[in-house]
Amino acid sequence: MTLIPLHDYTIYVGSTLQQLTAILREKSYTQHIVLADTNTAAHCLPHLNFLASDATFSVITIPAGEQYKTIQTCQTIWQELMDRQADRRSVLINLGGGVIGDMGGFCASTFKRGIDFIQVPTTLLAQVDASVGGKLGIDFADIKNSIGLFGNPQAVIADPVFFSTLPPRELRSGLAEIIKHSLIAEAEQWASIRTIDQLDTVDWPTLVAPSVRIKQHIVAQDPFEQGLRKALNFGHTIGHAIESDALHSASPLLHGEAIAAGMICESYLSVKQAGLSQAALQEISDIIGRIYTPRAIDERRFPHLLDLMRNDKKNRNRSEINCSLLSGIGTVVVDQAVAENDIITSLQYLNTLAKN
Amino acid sequence: MTLIPLHDYTIYVGSTLQQLTAILREKSYTQHIVLADTNTAAHCLPHLNFLASDATFSVITIPAGEQYKTIQTCQTIWQELMDRQADRRSVLINLGGGVIGDMGGFCASTFKRGIDFIQVPTTLLAQVDASVGGKLGIDFADIKNSIGLFGNPQAVIADPVFFSTLPPRELRSGLAEIIKHSLIAEAEQWASIRTIDQLDTVDWPTLVAPSVRIKQHIVAQDPFEQGLRKALNFGHTIGHAIESDALHSASPLLHGEAIAAGMICESYLSVKQAGLSQAALQEISDIIGRIYTPRAIDERRFPHLLDLMRNDKKNRNRSEINCSLLSGIGTVVVDQAVAENDIITSLQYLNTLAKN
Repeated sequence: MTLIPLHDYTIYVGSTLQQLTAILREKSYTQHIVLADTNTAAHCLPHLNFLASDATFSVITIPAGEQYKTIQTCQTIWQELMDRQADRRSVLINLGGGVIGDMGGFCASTFKRGIDFIQVPTTLLAQVDASVGGKLGIDFADIKNSIGLFGNPQAVIADPVFFSTLPPRELRSGLAEIIKHSLIAEAEQWASIRTIDQLDTVDWPTLVAPSVRIKQHIVAQDPFEQGLRKALNFGHTIGHAIESDALHSASPLLHGEAIAAGMICESYLSVKQAGLSQAALQEISDIIGRIYTPRAIDERRFPHLLDLMRNDKKNRNRSEINCSLLSGIGTVVVDQAVAENDIITSLQYLNTLAKN
Repeated sequence: MTLIPLHDYTIYVGSTLQQLTAILREKSYTQHIVLADTNTAAHCLPHLNFLASDATFSVITIPAGEQYKTIQTCQTIWQELMDRQADRRSVLINLGGGVIGDMGGFCASTFKRGIDFIQVPTTLLAQVDASVGGKLGIDFADIKNSIGLFGNPQAVIADPVFFSTLPPRELRSGLAEIIKHSLIAEAEQWASIRTIDQLDTVDWPTLVAPSVRIKQHIVAQDPFEQGLRKALNFGHTIGHAIESDALHSASPLLHGEAIAAGMICESYLSVKQAGLSQAALQEISDIIGRIYTPRAIDERRFPHLLDLMRNDKKNRNRSEINCSLLSGIGTVVVDQAVAENDIITSLQYLNTLAKN
């Protein structure tokens, strides 16, 4: 078990699920309410049965999927909390992936002006990405995470016990954030990622703790995303747009799959304007391409993708699109205004790697 | 002009509207967006015409009234901000009473995880009450302010220029919070309130600054309502329930009218269990009764009122109803559990003062 103590709370990495009992006992909450989706209610909730004998224990279940990360679902959650007469000394335990963590944290932080919440991320992505940084919220008007706030949980329990319940595609998606952390801050971890061959032989927990530490180190220096933290946006300006665009298509992408594509595009832009070597781009494209097999994007979608990028929260204004780019493997430069033509070229480069 | 500098921002009391120009210039926002309701758009917005020549200036207008303080209206506001391509460096200027300030502040604090907002309260109530304390939010599931968060504006402009646009009933409503502040913290101000005869001869601004200071003094010691700040809830446990109950009736009460009734009831309870003298209760009942002329409450509504009180955010759990009560004029005791029978008796006492 690895404890990562942050300023306000602790992240428990490893076989740590039983720690919940001690945390809940110490806080003496009036109610323990689990927020799950239909998937985690079926596959993950049984791992919490050691809590279920408690009279104050209950479960709110919502439909699974990013398409339910909406203000309408928030209203369902708030209403359920009202109906159970949750008070300010109740706690919400968010059992699920990023959607459950982001939306559950947002609902808890706004219910009666804020009740405690504990994150129990059940996907690799959520353990690595959503467990640090305090970004909470929902999608609105087709823009991902466009309504939300910054707020911290009481604790994060990052236990690999849930990974056995994940489809291989979900695990692979989570790896994208670990790849990102290694590219922006730790070339050594990138070296070990280069050696990944079969996903089912990876020892995930040993990748989670260092990756969480990289993110925590960056976030601690810039909690409200004023500067340095933008390093974490590498791959996300273009990746988010690709993810949003695919959201309502016949075959939506998982977050990590979209970010993997975004990292390829933004590595291409990094060669053009941030000093990344052509050899590094080739290596990044090879490794990410081998793990994810990028999907080609119809060029007729490019104008809509640019529209989505212009609306990105990360822009200072609508007249320019900003990226965080690599100056080398392990180093990043933020606030790089990129030209729309170059973005289109980078998407065309991505398409050359696609197998279809 | 009186400046009340708080930890995070400044409240400008008096003829201070022109200060907006300097504040906006200093911050270099990308857009200046005013949130108004149909009333303030008609009557108050003309006072801001010195800003309107700015190319970045625009107005979002929503329907007036507490019944629109909903998550649906928030969605309208967020969508309008999206449509105007507001970014994180835009500012929302909330021009109106408590509804506009609370809801506009909530929408700004959650749009793209938080943009700046400036409060320009146009009612006496909002200048005295909503300008300090950081409570933002909306009504949900018939419970007032049940969804929200704590957040501070960049500045508050409390200018009496808007009072000439208010109906006398609104001004009188605002006086209730000033009365409350004097009863819980400053017996001297109570002495001057005793002398109020005609409302149109009152010099309002001279009452606003000291009242804001009382509230600020209390809030600064307890920003997240853990203890001392509960003093400000005097009159509000019962008053909020009366207000909520009347919300959907043929004749809704203004907030201050409901709180005036709540203060009479809770003063009655203060005699019973907090040491307030019978003479003080008589004086409070006389003065508040003379200003507000309480309306009788149908006894058949009492069970619903108790239901609303049980759901109050201020309770630690549903098994008890808590009030902040007076131990004397100018002193308060918090966390007083009150019996439901005593609440009913206090409502019956209120009814004996009603003229109808």
